Amino acid sequence: MKLISFQASDRVRLGIKTENGIVDVCSTAEKAGLSAPNTMEDVIAAGQSGLDQLHQVLSQADETLEESTIQYAPVVQNPIKIICSGANYRAHVAEANLAIPEFPIYFPKYQNSLAAHNEEIVPPAITEQVDYEVEMVVVMGQQARNVTKEEALDYVFGYATGNDFSARDLQFRGVQWMYGKAIDQFAPIGPYLVTADEVPNPQNLDLKCWVNGDLRQNSNTEKMIFPIAELISDLSQAMTLEAGDVIFTGTPEGVIVGMEEKKWLQPGDEIVCEVEGLGRLVNRLAPR
Amino acid sequence: MKLISFQASDRVRLGIKTENGIVDVCSTAEKAGLSAPNTMEDVIAAGQSGLDQLHQVLSQADETLEESTIQYAPVVQNPIKIICSGANYRAHVAEANLAIPEFPIYFPKYQNSLAAHNEEIVPPAITEQVDYEVEMVVVMGQQARNVTKEEALDYVFGYATGNDFSARDLQFRGVQWMYGKAIDQFAPIGPYLVTADEVPNPQNLDLKCWVNGDLRQNSNTEKMIFPIAELISDLSQAMTLEAGDVIFTGTPEGVIVGMEEKKWLQPGDEIVCEVEGLGRLVNRLAPR
Repeated sequence: MKLISFQASDRVRLGIKTENGIVDVCSTAEKAGLSAPNTMEDVIAAGQSGLDQLHQVLSQADETLEESTIQYAPVVQNPIKIICSGANYRAHVAEANLAIPEFPIYFPKYQNSLAAHNEEIVPPAITEQVDYEVEMVVVMGQQARNVTKEEALDYVFGYATGNDFSARDLQFRGVQWMYGKAIDQFAPIGPYLVTADEVPNPQNLDLKCWVNGDLRQNSNTEKMIFPIAELISDLSQAMTLEAGDVIFTGTPEGVIVGMEEKKWLQPGDEIVCEVEGLGRLVNRLAPR
Repeated sequence: MKLISFQASDRVRLGIKTENGIVDVCSTAEKAGLSAPNTMEDVIAAGQSGLDQLHQVLSQADETLEESTIQYAPVVQNPIKIICSGANYRAHVAEANLAIPEFPIYFPKYQNSLAAHNEEIVPPAITEQVDYEVEMVVVMGQQARNVTKEEALDYVFGYATGNDFSARDLQFRGVQWMYGKAIDQFAPIGPYLVTADEVPNPQNLDLKCWVNGDLRQNSNTEKMIFPIAELISDLSQAMTLEAGDVIFTGTPEGVIVGMEEKKWLQPGDEIVCEVEGLGRLVNRLAPR
């Protein structure tokens, strides 16, 4: 299933994308007298039984919302952690003048960085070097502690397209990257959160990024240095991952910081990210 | 006021430390027919009116709990962010072979790292280099975005003693420190959260750390390279700080990684951290 979070007048609601439009889970369930999860957080917490309920809701849906009328919310609202993997594609490591890492590299974002599909991004006044990074994003489905690579993907709830917006001047003002990464709205995720059962092989998906229609990044998740299962297993040796935790899995080559002539993103620029099967994430930098 | 969070049979409760012991806010308020915040999060959210209610509760308290019988909880339970400042004392920067930073350096922890006063710490199996770091900890009282240095301290709810436990082998396995820092239980904070009105000058407090009674760190918060007000102002230029967010403000010299002969912490070791006026935070590494 392709799940969405969307803004209704009262609150953020849960939707399911179908070929005919978006099913409003709450109102469909109400009409059909079914019980169903109310939010993305509820679905994730409920696990398989929550997904089963959603399938029931889907089978009863006789009305849908036009996708173009939907105001998207970030797919998840309040993850306890947002962990980003850096330097995880060889060609990006080269363009960024980094060494090929022996172990995964992590840096943080927090809830303030969440943003939605179609949300206008307002960079802080103190940066002049805003860059994009298309990434495959993982949302955890269960608590994970000391899990092996072999079992790691069983703990995943779903996958989404993400953009790890980065302020390069702030990222590299010192030895730790966080200040240029954990910025308000700098982690848009969406439009969909695609359940893991619909992504049989997360390590063979094209990922692309366009700026104002110009293709900038074009790679495949098979090129990750540390595949998703290794990231999850590695993280879980040090910290307990929780259901709903978000992991950005790194970006391939083609970002601005790796170019000879660095034309940073400008007010009004439209950035489109897409991971195969997970949907197109569109964001525009606020106009001047 | 010196506030505490403690574990009762039903849930984590709010307490106030007095000279005669700990006042259980909830039960005292109930007996006196007063309304009062139920948890630390409630007090922080309520701001001055919450503190006023606690003063009323205090004036009605005729019973206290013996402090030695209390099972402490982390002073805050679910901060949205835990942000750590690194390399923020000159003599520590020197012992750690780092350059004096031109700008503040930040790295993350998350809720999984929270731990309580007296809590036994179980390091992950994959580290053999556990180190201590006494730090003054700031808990935000209000949302802060683009605040100046001059006004920054007005946004602080209170201060506490913290220990930024670090796994040096994991911290330095690559260029980002997070993996050796954001470890389960590696951010004990407590025993008290002391409200800002009782800390007129947070930049002139002794801070000390002992291991098994041996004094290892002994400095003063006046030696921070970037004082608390600068950290808050700087962070708030890039990200919105929220009420309840936690900031670790850096550690002075005397940590194991800076010693010639590095005798890492061992199972059973007792680590005591103290910031003047904020209380003694005691933790023991789990015995083998």
